Amino acid sequence: MMNIGIDAMGGDFAPLEALRGVKKYLEENTNEALRITLFGDADAIKKIIKEEHIPAASIDIVATTQVIGMHEHPTRALKEKTDSSIAVGFQYLAKGKTDAFISAGNTGTMLVGALFSLKTIEGILRPVISSIIPKQNGGTGLILDVGLNADCKPEQLNQFATLGTVYAKHVLEIENPKVGLINVGEEEGKGNILTQATYPLLKENKQLNFIGNIEGRDTFNGKADVMVCDGFTGNIILKLAESIYDISKTEAPDSPYLNRFNFEIYGGTPVLGVAHPVIVGHGISKATAFSNMIRVAEKMLKTEVLHKLKDAIQPR
Amino acid sequence: MMNIGIDAMGGDFAPLEALRGVKKYLEENTNEALRITLFGDADAIKKIIKEEHIPAASIDIVATTQVIGMHEHPTRALKEKTDSSIAVGFQYLAKGKTDAFISAGNTGTMLVGALFSLKTIEGILRPVISSIIPKQNGGTGLILDVGLNADCKPEQLNQFATLGTVYAKHVLEIENPKVGLINVGEEEGKGNILTQATYPLLKENKQLNFIGNIEGRDTFNGKADVMVCDGFTGNIILKLAESIYDISKTEAPDSPYLNRFNFEIYGGTPVLGVAHPVIVGHGISKATAFSNMIRVAEKMLKTEVLHKLKDAIQPR
Repeated sequence: MMNIGIDAMGGDFAPLEALRGVKKYLEENTNEALRITLFGDADAIKKIIKEEHIPAASIDIVATTQVIGMHEHPTRALKEKTDSSIAVGFQYLAKGKTDAFISAGNTGTMLVGALFSLKTIEGILRPVISSIIPKQNGGTGLILDVGLNADCKPEQLNQFATLGTVYAKHVLEIENPKVGLINVGEEEGKGNILTQATYPLLKENKQLNFIGNIEGRDTFNGKADVMVCDGFTGNIILKLAESIYDISKTEAPDSPYLNRFNFEIYGGTPVLGVAHPVIVGHGISKATAFSNMIRVAEKMLKTEVLHKLKDAIQPR
Repeated sequence: MMNIGIDAMGGDFAPLEALRGVKKYLEENTNEALRITLFGDADAIKKIIKEEHIPAASIDIVATTQVIGMHEHPTRALKEKTDSSIAVGFQYLAKGKTDAFISAGNTGTMLVGALFSLKTIEGILRPVISSIIPKQNGGTGLILDVGLNADCKPEQLNQFATLGTVYAKHVLEIENPKVGLINVGEEEGKGNILTQATYPLLKENKQLNFIGNIEGRDTFNGKADVMVCDGFTGNIILKLAESIYDISKTEAPDSPYLNRFNFEIYGGTPVLGVAHPVIVGHGISKATAFSNMIRVAEKMLKTEVLHKLKDAIQPR
């Protein structure tokens, strides 16, 4: 028997959508060894169960009287609102009354709750959060950390790789998942201080199928299944990736906007801070790119931008 | 009179596409005060000029005998191949014989050349490279650094902001460009050590129209015109953004792949490293998300992934 706890009050559309999710799950799955424990406003929950015709046989309700808002301070809220759905949900989980806990509520509070209500796995330096990344080959990737640890040590990234490998193998059902270190170049030795120091650790970690460095462009291809980075980098990648979906919904495939992702039209990359304009182009540059690099150089000169940069750095 | 130097040998399709670019530029622009100096194999260049009917009146050719390949070691190549198109191109630029230099060749060599052949602007801590980012509102953004400085100090990011502001104002013609610090949260105080220390510097920098932190999801919207980050972060954002174009070319707008960017189908984010499964959902979660979070929790339990994580961290 497994018992899954759900914060019925968490999320912008709670409790209705939380409960509709429960209904959808129950309709599609017939795991009789599974119970669901809902934490929240019991009257509201019962009302919705009735109105939405949710099969209630496998549902337990734990009445809580408080709700932690989306913008409350995580630590303070958890301390002060001891009868909130999140606080009680974690108590149940810590005591073994439930086996898992789900919430779409205040993310910070959920993380603080996870870190302080629960023990960490022995030997874990720091917990980590991960996210699924859709791969263009139809597969599924995992990226971690996506935000819990903004600054990381190499040993942490090495553990993230192990955690991600195990999770990918068992939960995502990826056989022998390929681990990639998110970096700014493919060769060993590339990177910032963190990734340079992490590479040898991953290479020596016998628990991993380490395939080396991967780059930003490999996020959606099949090069690596488990993509390892610090929480700062991962959070930015994740939020950027999420925004792509919104864009794809509003743009036709040959829309002028998507065409603007053709980096050739911008020509090249100016090096700023040296005494003359230098434009660095892509290896794949064709006529348009070259033409536009010239245009940029011309513009830089015409506008005397170097003098302006100089003035800005050393105001007279 | 301005004289723009071009490495005719740089790029995967050089010299042909470099020269076609020159032609395209010359056809579309009638700046008589502009000359173009091509560095490279003079015979090959002349042959293409003839074959492609490129107007040669404003073109000078500087014959060079060597080419630095795309995968050569930057410093060594520049030192040893003194008669390469890139080395000579930089000599001309350093001596004032040309006013700008463009190449689509070996990027590392171009950067090394820029750093060591040219003086830096006085007061500059470190040069920086930037890139254009298409904004969905039709505007144009600038992101910097995109790869020259993998590890940065707050003072450098502050200078990048100033450099970017000036460049955006004058070259991109953005009036009073909004500067955003790329970060993992909107509020002041969020971030890693670097961004936390950078924020107050940007806030106090009177040369900037600083609008605060921006997140990964703001890369393509109009929130900030100048987006400031370290070179590690910027390189990953840039390469990720570039890959979107390739994806958009092969996918219809409602393609199954693009639909997979709907993060709701993945439900939530498991916290790994704590003793029980914890799934953190989006605030915007609806039924599908909740249903899938349950599915994930169930899967985590069924597969006893926590035991496996534990075993992986503390092998018996």
